This record gives sequence, structure tokens and C-alpha cells, in this order.
Amino acid sequence: MSICDFNHYLIRPGQNMKLAEVSSDPWDDLPSKKSEAKEELSRLQERLSDLQQRFFVDRRKKMLLVLQGMDTSGKNGTIRHVFRGVNPQGVHVASFERPSSRELAHDYLWRVHKRAPSEGEIIIFDRSHYEDVLAVRVNNLKPETVWKKRYRHIRDFEQLLYDEETVILKFFLHIDRDTQKKRLQERLDVPAKNWKFDQSDLVARSKWDAYVQAYEDVFAETACEHAPWYVIPANKKWARNLLVARIVVACLEDMHLSYPQVDYDPAKIVIK
Amino acid sequence: MSICDFNHYLIRPGQNMKLAEVSSDPWDDLPSKKSEAKEELSRLQERLSDLQQRFFVDRRKKMLLVLQGMDTSGKNGTIRHVFRGVNPQGVHVASFERPSSRELAHDYLWRVHKRAPSEGEIIIFDRSHYEDVLAVRVNNLKPETVWKKRYRHIRDFEQLLYDEETVILKFFLHIDRDTQKKRLQERLDVPAKNWKFDQSDLVARSKWDAYVQAYEDVFAETACEHAPWYVIPANKKWARNLLVARIVVACLEDMHLSYPQVDYDPAKIVIK
Repeated sequence: MSICDFNHYLIRPGQNMKLAEVSSDPWDDLPSKKSEAKEELSRLQERLSDLQQRFFVDRRKKMLLVLQGMDTSGKNGTIRHVFRGVNPQGVHVASFERPSSRELAHDYLWRVHKRAPSEGEIIIFDRSHYEDVLAVRVNNLKPETVWKKRYRHIRDFEQLLYDEETVILKFFLHIDRDTQKKRLQERLDVPAKNWKFDQSDLVARSKWDAYVQAYEDVFAETACEHAPWYVIPANKKWARNLLVARIVVACLEDMHLSYPQVDYDPAKIVIK
Repeated sequence: MSICDFNHYLIRPGQNMKLAEVSSDPWDDLPSKKSEAKEELSRLQERLSDLQQRFFVDRRKKMLLVLQGMDTSGKNGTIRHVFRGVNPQGVHVASFERPSSRELAHDYLWRVHKRAPSEGEIIIFDRSHYEDVLAVRVNNLKPETVWKKRYRHIRDFEQLLYDEETVILKFFLHIDRDTQKKRLQERLDVPAKNWKFDQSDLVARSKWDAYVQAYEDVFAETACEHAPWYVIPANKKWARNLLVARIVVACLEDMHLSYPQVDYDPAKIVIK
């Protein structure tokens, strides 16, 4: 499969998409049975593990995967399930929690750029610089004159990374309000999940529409060919994982990665 | 004095300046006697020390000073003489030597952005991201298709820093070939300066014209109002130091920095 096969999940540059018009339930190119999905995911994990090893050894490209989504959309779950088989030497997760005071004292891309990938490395952003035009905007942490300029900075920053050999894929894990309610309730009902619950999630939930608006603006401002946004229907965890895995694998397949050519004949070397 | 008083040292955006047409000997707004210059510099150092303290306490702005110039143009000397009086807590020098293999594995602005200033901080770049379109270009370390894109990245990067409250001043320490010859010869003749001599300086010297061309393109591509380039006549060290000090002080004066207002009456507080 090639990455082009997923163009129907892609936000076209300049497209004014409305999230409400996109289903967050699995689309019909996904298996109808959960068991089939599981089997396919485990095949994809193996393939990803092999491709990632080639990517790591090849060292021609850098890779940046951005995961964004409402609370409970499954950013952590996606990382855990899709990337479980890979070599931790070449794959790293950068989580962008609330910035520290040292981070806040710098421009907002300072802490982000520090975590940009190097050659052969895959970096997964669990939240990202997009929070600086999402949470920051919705919670009025900066005036509009400040955050409005950031779309341009972000486009420029991703252009720099792209020009410097970084492959960028951005995923929006798309859930609906009911799914979020169910998952938050589960965190209250299941004792082993209580630790995941955070009062501030309810505050964010009460601003759902403002977040939707902010995300739609992000897509309109920052979807581009070299740093595309994929909207992943994420009401079903198995579908979400499968789709992200398919897209990442297809992207790596398209690179036709092979192990480096050697300049000696291994058959002629005798190890005494 | 205001920063505008130095507009005749400024490269105008879009101006196609030729370095050969600019004198690297002191211009006539500088004292004719070295002793006068010394006195003025020491007054400026004191003023700078006070202004820097205010800047540090004020914490509204960040400051980035970029020093570029041919070998022996006096980047280190400028830092030593102009900034000797400041509080080292708030002023830091970032030297961009040959990049490490870890740095080379990232995009070229990765190591640069890491050293960007925070609020209240003055960062002096001793060489900078400009080497990535100077040394890299002249020595063919990257093909033209790669370094040509970097002018845009650099403009975008400086725009980001500016939008995020960074004051940027860029200085080109302008010496002529004869001065460089004299200073290199001194490094050979004076035993206490032998350690400064590096064979590679002669290689760079042999590419003088290519560097001039590369600098002229840098100025044409990256001189702008919010990140201006100043050409500092630097054949005479005292003139160079004085001029950089004058400009930095004028820039800080223009900010009208005062110590933060307090919300109590100090006279009414009794310390028992």
C-alpha cells in the first residue's frame, strides 16, 4: 500500500473542513470484525519494526509524527499499540505537557525544536506546538494578536524541517463528545483507571466547541503537502490503531528503504 | 543617543551593497584620538552594565546579538571589551564552532534555536546560523539547492524570535585583507599569540572573494527592519568596540527600561 491510498483521510490544503461532517466511527475501508483488525495490526507491527530498523540504518531521513486530539482520544494508546515492536534506540516520544517556567521564558517553539528528530530517528509528538494555537487560544493564555502569528511560524518551522529531510505526518485522533463522555466516566468507574482522571479534563470538555473551532482553523492554516494532517476516526480504538499503523507503514514503504550497500564481498572475508 | 543615529551603518533591506565600497577604517563620527575613544568606551561600559541589569529585571524582552566577520575581525575581542562590565547571570555567549556529529544529524537550526535567549537574557552569538550559508556555501559542504533555501529559513526563524519579543541586532565586523594579513602575521610573530594561529585560517583567507560574495548575499537576503545588519568598520579595534557599544547601548536606551514598580510604600515598612 502507498500513502496515496489514504488520501481520503487527508485534509486538503486550503480545504475548509468541518469536523462535525466527518464521522469518528470506522469508515468502510476498515475490517468489519475486530478480530480481523487485530490480526492485521499484528502483521503491521512486524512490518513497522523491520521498516523502522531500515530507516534507522539508512539515516537519510528524519521522521516526525504529530499526535493531536481531544482528551481521551487515545494519543498514548496509539503510541503503545502501534509502536510496541520498534527499536527504542531509534524511536522516541516527546510529550508536551504544560510548559515549565524555563520553557515559558523562551519563544514557544524553543522546547519543540529541541525535540526535532535527527537522521534515522522517528520522533512521536504526544501533543505538540499545535497546543500553542489550541489550548493557548481556547484558554486565552495569549491575546489573539500573539497566537494568530503562530500559524505562520508553524508553517515556516515545518517547512524548515521538511527542507532539511524530515518526513512529517500529523494525525488528529477524531472522537465525538459521546465517546469522550463514556471514556471519562470509565475513568471514574474503574478503580484502576481513577489515576487517569483529571478535573481539568471537565473544564476542557466544557469548551468542546471552542476546541473544534480552533482545530478547524489549525487544519485550514497548516495542512500542506509536505506536512499533511490526517483525520483518524478514533471512536473505536482498534480502528484508530490500525489506521495510524497503516499510514505510517505505507509512508515508510514508499521510501524503498534498503540496508546500505557494502563495498566489500562478504564471501571473501575469512574470520580466523 | 537613539539607535536611529546609526542608520548610516545599517544595511537597508533590499539594498545591494558591495563590501568593497564600504571603508573598514573608522568613519568620521568616531573620535580621532584613541584616548578619547577609550574614555567614551569606559563610560559606555558602565551605562551598559546598568541597562543590562534593568533589562534582566524587566523581563519583558529577549535580546539576540549576532557577531559575524572574517577570521581575525575581532569577534572575541568585541565581546571581551564591550561586555566586560555586565552581570554574567543575564548575558551569555553562544559560540558556534564546527558542528558535532550529533548536531549535524539534525536540521542546522536545531543547535541554534536551543541557544535562543529567554526573557531578560542577552545572548551573544559568536558566529551563528549564518555560517550555514557562509562557510557551508564557500566550502561546498552542501549543494546550492540546499543552502539557497536557508535564507528563507533564517528570515522565518528571526521573524519567529522577533514576534516572540526578541530584539535582534546583527553585526558584521568589517576588516580588509591587509588587516587580516597583519593580524595573522602577528599570531605567528608573537609567541603568546601562536596558539591562536590555525592553518585553516589560511585556507579561508585564500577564499576571501568567495566569502565577500557570500556575505553580500546574506545581507541582501536577510537584512530587515526587525533583524538589522550593521556593518562595523573593524580595522581599528578601538573603533570597532566603541561602535558596537554605542549601538547596543542606544538600542537598550530606546526601550526606556525602568525597575519594576512595587505595590507597597517602602517608607511604611519597618524591619524589626
